[in-house]
Amino acid sequence: MARPTPLSGFPELLPADRFAEQHVLDHLRRTFELHGFAPVETRAVEPMDQLLRKGEIDKEVYVLRRLQAAEGEGDAGIGLHFDLTVPFARYVLEHAGKLEFPFRRYQIQKVWRGERPQEGRFREFTQADIDVVAKDELPFHFDVEIATVMAEALSGLPVPPLRIQVNNRKLLEGFYRGLGAADPAAVMRVMDKIDKLPADGVRDLLAKEDLDEEQAGKCLALAGIRTSDASFVDQVRALGVDDPLLDEGLQELAQLVEALAAVELDGVTVTADLRIARGLDYYTGSVFETVLEGFESLGSICSGGRYEKLADDGRNVYPGVGISLGVTRLLVPLISRGHLTTSRAVPSAVLVALVDEESRPLSNAIAQRLRARGVPTEVAAAPQKFGKQIRYAERRGIPYVWFPATGDGADQVKDIRSGDQADADPDVWTPPADDLRPAVVTPNAPTPTNDTRGATS
Amino acid sequence: MARPTPLSGFPELLPADRFAEQHVLDHLRRTFELHGFAPVETRAVEPMDQLLRKGEIDKEVYVLRRLQAAEGEGDAGIGLHFDLTVPFARYVLEHAGKLEFPFRRYQIQKVWRGERPQEGRFREFTQADIDVVAKDELPFHFDVEIATVMAEALSGLPVPPLRIQVNNRKLLEGFYRGLGAADPAAVMRVMDKIDKLPADGVRDLLAKEDLDEEQAGKCLALAGIRTSDASFVDQVRALGVDDPLLDEGLQELAQLVEALAAVELDGVTVTADLRIARGLDYYTGSVFETVLEGFESLGSICSGGRYEKLADDGRNVYPGVGISLGVTRLLVPLISRGHLTTSRAVPSAVLVALVDEESRPLSNAIAQRLRARGVPTEVAAAPQKFGKQIRYAERRGIPYVWFPATGDGADQVKDIRSGDQADADPDVWTPPADDLRPAVVTPNAPTPTNDTRGATS
Repeated sequence: MARPTPLSGFPELLPADRFAEQHVLDHLRRTFELHGFAPVETRAVEPMDQLLRKGEIDKEVYVLRRLQAAEGEGDAGIGLHFDLTVPFARYVLEHAGKLEFPFRRYQIQKVWRGERPQEGRFREFTQADIDVVAKDELPFHFDVEIATVMAEALSGLPVPPLRIQVNNRKLLEGFYRGLGAADPAAVMRVMDKIDKLPADGVRDLLAKEDLDEEQAGKCLALAGIRTSDASFVDQVRALGVDDPLLDEGLQELAQLVEALAAVELDGVTVTADLRIARGLDYYTGSVFETVLEGFESLGSICSGGRYEKLADDGRNVYPGVGISLGVTRLLVPLISRGHLTTSRAVPSAVLVALVDEESRPLSNAIAQRLRARGVPTEVAAAPQKFGKQIRYAERRGIPYVWFPATGDGADQVKDIRSGDQADADPDVWTPPADDLRPAVVTPNAPTPTNDTRGATS
Repeated sequence: MARPTPLSGFPELLPADRFAEQHVLDHLRRTFELHGFAPVETRAVEPMDQLLRKGEIDKEVYVLRRLQAAEGEGDAGIGLHFDLTVPFARYVLEHAGKLEFPFRRYQIQKVWRGERPQEGRFREFTQADIDVVAKDELPFHFDVEIATVMAEALSGLPVPPLRIQVNNRKLLEGFYRGLGAADPAAVMRVMDKIDKLPADGVRDLLAKEDLDEEQAGKCLALAGIRTSDASFVDQVRALGVDDPLLDEGLQELAQLVEALAAVELDGVTVTADLRIARGLDYYTGSVFETVLEGFESLGSICSGGRYEKLADDGRNVYPGVGISLGVTRLLVPLISRGHLTTSRAVPSAVLVALVDEESRPLSNAIAQRLRARGVPTEVAAAPQKFGKQIRYAERRGIPYVWFPATGDGADQVKDIRSGDQADADPDVWTPPADDLRPAVVTPNAPTPTNDTRGATS
């Protein structure tokens, strides 16, 4: 068989890079669980009618067909999920009687999009979602919690700085209504194009919504407001628009930004950005986006918001608030550009050398004593000359080679990076914590580009 | 939307049960990594020609089609993988230049089978595979290593006793050849039916392979040999058959059984069972099967063996040895019969009570101090009466409720199971290790049935 070629859009990692991904996934899981989020894993498939609900007919879905299907049997009526929200909404309805609400869950799984292959588009990728869902009513403090938990989960990741940008749909809708717009939702759709159109183009579209020049100017002024604290409230007030829904949105967003300002974060900043609307989605309150500085062209790698109706079974409505992190979208561009990997291609911290094939049980026993104390260890594949065994370790990035005692001597362990070698007891010796597992390394970490849209306060 | 119904063959777990699965998966991963096995994750799909190699046309594959495919575009030419061996073989060839051989990898992923729904058949399930693959030559000690690592991984799992049954294809082939069979492989195929046919039926089939009554009797005698040590060697020798391949097989199997007898195992036994042949698969030496005692009808839940040619790129041949554990097949029957779950439905060990909505930041700060020391903690959803907040914890299985100090008093923590309540400092207090995460529980653990095929020594 000839050497296979990669399938476009289906990224795969070499072991040293997979360790970096695992490091990130472990950190996410640990953070989510520390905050009481329960793990949920849903099946990979949903019935087609679920996947195409809400008229999402434009979703790029992979439909499944049984290879052994009888003639005329057609598709299996199921497709691969394209996100984790549709399956979670279905899971909540299916198991509602067995879940306790409010229900916090995290879900880290692959999703698939049946797209035409094109540069930078993934057809298979991992998402990490957190949501809180309640029965009938979900207090606003859960919006704060969701944003806090994801900010903490992103904090300290081995990636360039991340900027979480938050806004509130009530603020936008209330503002446009208070301004006199007949159809505030239509104005929001226009304003959502602000990054793709010149200001004049936006003004033209706003004019079609019967907004005069002054009104349009205020819409653009609103979209230009961006602060890292609650000072956006005064800037909005200064535009002289009054509406009860606007008040509610301002109050919610201020509460969110102030709560997040109190969280200790490393490499993550949070700003109120009144330009964010999150497209035509079903969000009704808080909305979140996240950009990776220096990689703005990737778009938002972590997004979400409040939706008044995650699910509805006719008797109960289930409101929710959630954020979805595109793990593959965040990591694979860094890994493939060589900005993120780990120090070795195997978990082993120690290679136990082999004196000769007959003494393999002795080397195995040493390895087992090290493993019993949590030290990942492998035994040399063949009793080559020690120099060759050391090179075997070197090629895999294994930092220590262990030499079993011969004759009266003691066992010895060698740090093959420094060359230091010393007597050691396999029931006592432990490598430094940093050497215990593959260390994340960020070679040539990219310098964030100067972002001209920096926070104004 | 009406309440959705489950899809047959696509099992999903409630959070308390998912914790049990996670516990097992974490234990597997930890064991594999302690032995130096590197993590590999392959994409979920393979080109159809890969999936249908080796004439495996009978495999139940799910074929993918893009919903948005242009008319006449047809299937996408890819299907979901039905095991982890085909993708791993492809991965080895694709990345051979970047891997170090011998290459140890573990892979824990979902696989899919496009089967008709039927009781007990999964269409989506998780497998945990370990393999060692080499370039051109793979010494026998890796067979011992693979069996040892999987035995250790199975050791101490919260499941009924497991019996690993090992054999060797060289032993079988050499025996049949030494016996005078013209087509030893055909005899092996007959003997593989021994569990499904009466002895007379097997004798009839052996007669068709030109084996006389005495020869057939020896085949049946061989299949009846089963020992937990190397005493099978003498029992085979007593049948008076001589062949160099038989000698090799006996020597390998004895080495394997003796090495495994030296491993400390909990709930796992290893026996040489000369009936095992692993069907018509591509194994060429060691073969492994595993039965769950009391659940023999599930078939083998952990199987594998040595194959001389995992992959072949025209320049190099890649021999391998591996075992695949059916995680879903092992756990879901236990979970669905109520024999395996965990003590709670949330990760939280502590619920911090809420005095009133205004003091939420205070409760949040307490929670954050507990989390900083690794204690999973959530804050009450609403400032209900404390009795209600305690019941909120109770329903989720959260063992501790934390009461923030009011007035001059200290914070207090209550073990809601015992009712014990005491002063506590969120920077110091830690729950007992057993309470830190959901504890695996095995209610009404099934008693293994008396197995009439018990080891003979």
